[in-house]
Amino acid sequence: MTNFLSLADVTSIDDLIQSGLAAKANPFADQQLGKNKTIGLIFFNSSLRTRLSTQKAAQNLGMNVMMMNVGQDSWGLEMEEGVLMNGDKAEHVREAAAVMGRYCDIIGIRAFAELKDRDKDYREQVMHQFATYAKVPIVNLESATRHPLQSLADCITIEEAKLVTRPKVVLTWLPHFKPLPQAVANSFCEWMNARVQSGNVDFVVTHPKGYELAPEFVGDAPVIYDQSEAFAGADFIYGKNWSSYTQYGQVLTQDPSWAVTMDDLNLTNNGKFMHCLPVRRNLKVSDAVLDSPQSLVIEQAANREWSAQAVLKEILTNLG
Amino acid sequence: MTNFLSLADVTSIDDLIQSGLAAKANPFADQQLGKNKTIGLIFFNSSLRTRLSTQKAAQNLGMNVMMMNVGQDSWGLEMEEGVLMNGDKAEHVREAAAVMGRYCDIIGIRAFAELKDRDKDYREQVMHQFATYAKVPIVNLESATRHPLQSLADCITIEEAKLVTRPKVVLTWLPHFKPLPQAVANSFCEWMNARVQSGNVDFVVTHPKGYELAPEFVGDAPVIYDQSEAFAGADFIYGKNWSSYTQYGQVLTQDPSWAVTMDDLNLTNNGKFMHCLPVRRNLKVSDAVLDSPQSLVIEQAANREWSAQAVLKEILTNLG
Amino acid sequence: MTNFLSLADVTSIDDLIQSGLAAKANPFADQQLGKNKTIGLIFFNSSLRTRLSTQKAAQNLGMNVMMMNVGQDSWGLEMEEGVLMNGDKAEHVREAAAVMGRYCDIIGIRAFAELKDRDKDYREQVMHQFATYAKVPIVNLESATRHPLQSLADCITIEEAKLVTRPKVVLTWLPHFKPLPQAVANSFCEWMNARVQSGNVDFVVTHPKGYELAPEFVGDAPVIYDQSEAFAGADFIYGKNWSSYTQYGQVLTQDPSWAVTMDDLNLTNNGKFMHCLPVRRNLKVSDAVLDSPQSLVIEQAANREWSAQAVLKEILTNLG
Repeated sequence: MTNFLSLADVTSIDDLIQSGLAAKANPFADQQLGKNKTIGLIFFNSSLRTRLSTQKAAQNLGMNVMMMNVGQDSWGLEMEEGVLMNGDKAEHVREAAAVMGRYCDIIGIRAFAELKDRDKDYREQVMHQFATYAKVPIVNLESATRHPLQSLADCITIEEAKLVTRPKVVLTWLPHFKPLPQAVANSFCEWMNARVQSGNVDFVVTHPKGYELAPEFVGDAPVIYDQSEAFAGADFIYGKNWSSYTQYGQVLTQDPSWAVTMDDLNLTNNGKFMHCLPVRRNLKVSDAVLDSPQSLVIEQAANREWSAQAVLKEILTNLG
Repeated sequence: MTNFLSLADVTSIDDLIQSGLAAKANPFADQQLGKNKTIGLIFFNSSLRTRLSTQKAAQNLGMNVMMMNVGQDSWGLEMEEGVLMNGDKAEHVREAAAVMGRYCDIIGIRAFAELKDRDKDYREQVMHQFATYAKVPIVNLESATRHPLQSLADCITIEEAKLVTRPKVVLTWLPHFKPLPQAVANSFCEWMNARVQSGNVDFVVTHPKGYELAPEFVGDAPVIYDQSEAFAGADFIYGKNWSSYTQYGQVLTQDPSWAVTMDDLNLTNNGKFMHCLPVRRNLKVSDAVLDSPQSLVIEQAANREWSAQAVLKEILTNLG
Repeated sequence: MTNFLSLADVTSIDDLIQSGLAAKANPFADQQLGKNKTIGLIFFNSSLRTRLSTQKAAQNLGMNVMMMNVGQDSWGLEMEEGVLMNGDKAEHVREAAAVMGRYCDIIGIRAFAELKDRDKDYREQVMHQFATYAKVPIVNLESATRHPLQSLADCITIEEAKLVTRPKVVLTWLPHFKPLPQAVANSFCEWMNARVQSGNVDFVVTHPKGYELAPEFVGDAPVIYDQSEAFAGADFIYGKNWSSYTQYGQVLTQDPSWAVTMDDLNLTNNGKFMHCLPVRRNLKVSDAVLDSPQSLVIEQAANREWSAQAVLKEILTNLG
C-alpha cells in the first residue's frame, strides 16, 4: 500500500482486519516502526473521532504528529488549476501539498464534499491533487466520496461481533434535515460488496426512492425500498443519512419513519446497530437503540484507532 | 484519586502540595509513569495557562497529549438528555465522552458556566456527564462552579511564600464590566476552608453586598463588606471578579474603589498579591501592584504546572 | 545566540548555513539536545510553513512542542503599557509572556505588521515585549518588520543552488491587490546586504517608484526601477509583494507587468526563481515559472525546516 485513498489501494481486507485486531490486543508492539517519522493531519472540516483516533494510532506506532486546520491555522487553499488567484484563497494546493510533503512522511487529509457540483466532488480533486503534488503517501481521512478508515473499522467491528459465519448486513438511510455527503455510505457499500465477493457477508441497501447511491458504489447490492422488509433477518443494521445523489445534494424527504427505533430493531435477527457517529439522537436513531446492548456505535468508534493503526503500519512498513 | 473534579476527590491537600513541590524541584523524575498513556485535553472555552501548564505537566510525566477545541476542531456537543437533536449540535456527549474515553487514559475538560441558568450551572452537568460516560478519570480544567487545579496551585504558592505558620488570607472581589463565573472564587473558598480546618491559614472573604457566593462554598468563612477592614493584617490578598450568585450572572456594580492599588496593599501585613490570571490591568488591579515585588501572580501561574503534575501523577499511579 | 529576532542576533551566517545543511543531511543527529526541553509556538496570525517546519525542526531535535493560536485557543493580548484594560483584550503581554516563559524553554512568536501605524510596527513592540517579559530565548516566526527564519532558509537555498561563486541576486516587487507587510522583503535585504559584505553575492532591488523599503533595510543595495534592466544577468530572482513603506500600508499600483513570467525569467542568466510562499499564481508569478525547473520555491520552503533546526540547535546549545 502506498496511498490509502480507497479500497482500490488495499491488497487484502482480511490482512488489514487481522492487523487492526493485533494492534487492539497489543497497541505498542510496533513502536519502533514510526520512530522519527512524522504524519501531518490536515483538516478542511471538523473532526472528532478521525482527529483523535488517527493521532492516537500514529503515536502508538511511535510517530510524531502535526495537526493543521486549513483556513484556521493556515491560509485557504486554491484547488483549481490554471486560475488567476485574485480571490480569497492565498495559496495553491500545488505549493501547499508539495511543501507539506517535504515536512511529513505521511499526510492525512480530510476534505468533505461541497455538495454543489457532483462531477467535481466525484472527481476527488483534493485527494488526487495531494497524492500528485505531495509525493508522500496520502491517507484519506474522509474525502468527498469515501471514508475508507471508517469502512475498515466497520469491517473490524463486524468481524468481532458476528455470531454467524456469513452475517446479513443492511445499510439503511436515516432521516436528517441537513444535506450530508454520501461518503460514508459509498465507502461502506464499496467495502461490503468486496466482503460479499469473499463470502464474508450478505449485504442489502435500503432507502427511500430518490436516494439511490452512485452505481459504481452500490454495485450489485440489492436495493429494497421497504425498510421493514430489508431488516428481516438482519444481523447488522448500519444507519446513515445521505443527501440525494441523483438530485445532487438535495434533501428529498425527512420522513421520520426511517429513523431506527427498537421496533425496527426487533424486526432483525437480534441485530446489532452500527453508525459512524456523530449521530443526532431521536432524529436518526432513538435513545433506546443507542443505549441498548445491541448498539455497537462506541466499539465501532473505538475501532477507528485500530483501523488507522493497521493502515499506518502497512504504509510505514512500505516506506522502508 | 480517580477523578479530580473538586476537593471532594482529594485525600490529602498536604500530600498534593508536597508532590507538586517535588515535581517543581525535579520535573522529570516520573517520566516512566506516563509512558504510552494519553491525556485528551478538551476545551469548550479559551485557555492559556491551563492549556499550556497541563500539557507541559503531562509531557513531564512522559504522556502523550491530544488537544481538542470543541465546536472549532470538532462538532458542538449536546448535553441535555432525551432531546430530539434537531438544532445546531451534531453530537451528544453520551457518544462523544464514551468515544474519547476509548482513545484516552485520562480526559481533562474545560467548560465554563453559561451564567444563564444557575441551577443548571451548579449541577455541573458537563463534568458529571463526562465522568459518567467516558469511563476514564476526568480532570476538571475549570468547570461551571470550580477550578481545583487553580486552587491547588494557589495552595502551593501560599505554602512557598508564607512567612508565618498560619497566614491570614483574604479573598477580595474586584470590579469588572463583564459578568464572570464564580468558579475560581468558589474553588478558592472550598480549598481555603479546608486549610482553615487543618490549621494552615486564616481566611476572610470581602466583597460588595449582593456578591455573596453560594453558601456551600463560602462555608464558615467570615464575610466583611468593608475591603479596608478585611485587608488589615493580611498576609495574602487573593483578587478575583465574579458576577452575582444571588442575582445570577449579573453585574451589580463596577465600583472602582474595589480595585486593588498599592494604597490598599499597604493596609496589609506587607501582604502578597495573588490572582489566577488573566487580569485586566488598572481595571481590577493597578500596574504598581502587579509589577511590585509583592505580586505573586507569575509564580502562582508557574505553579499551575506543578499542581497539574501532582494531580496527574496521582491519577496515573492509581491507573495501575 | 540568545534570541533570534533579527540578523543582529547572528554571529555567523556561514555557520548557520552549514549547520542547516548538516541537519538536512542528518536530521536526527542532535536528538538528545532537546530532550525534556519545550518550545512554545505562539501565533497571532495564520501560518503553514512556519508552523509545520518549526514544529518539525524542534521534534527532530527531540523537543516537545506546544502550539497556541492567540485569540482563538486563548484570549486576545494587550500590548500597550499603562492602559486601563476595559476593551476586548483580557490579558496583558506582561503576564502572558512571563507565564509562557515559565512553561517553555524557548518561545517562537508570529505577529504580523498591522500596517496602520508605521512607527508602532517598526518599533517591533510584540517581539521586544516577549523578549523582555518571557525571560527565555525568543524566536521570530515573522514579526512586523522581519522574517529571519525565512532569510536564513533563503541563504541556505542560494548556497545549495548557486552555479557561480558570487551570484547576482535580484529582489523584485510583485503586484498584489491586498496590502502586505514589508517583513520578508526587509529581512531579505538585511541578510543579502550582509552576504554582499562577505563577498558571497551581488544584490539588486527592483520595484515601482513609491515602493522604496525602509533605508535601514535597503542599505547600500542598488535600486533599479526598471525590472528588465535589473533582471539582466541575474542568477536568482526573489519575488515578493509588499505595500508601500513611504505611504505606509498602501497599494499604490497593481501593474501586472511586474508579475514574473517566463519572458522575464529569460532575461536572466538562466536564473532561478525564489518566493517565500504562499504565492498567488498568475497574479504575482505565472504558472509556467512556478512549474519550471528554474523554480526553487519548494526547495526553499523545504529549507525552512533546516533553517529552524540550525537556529534552535544553537539556542539549545547556549541554554546549557
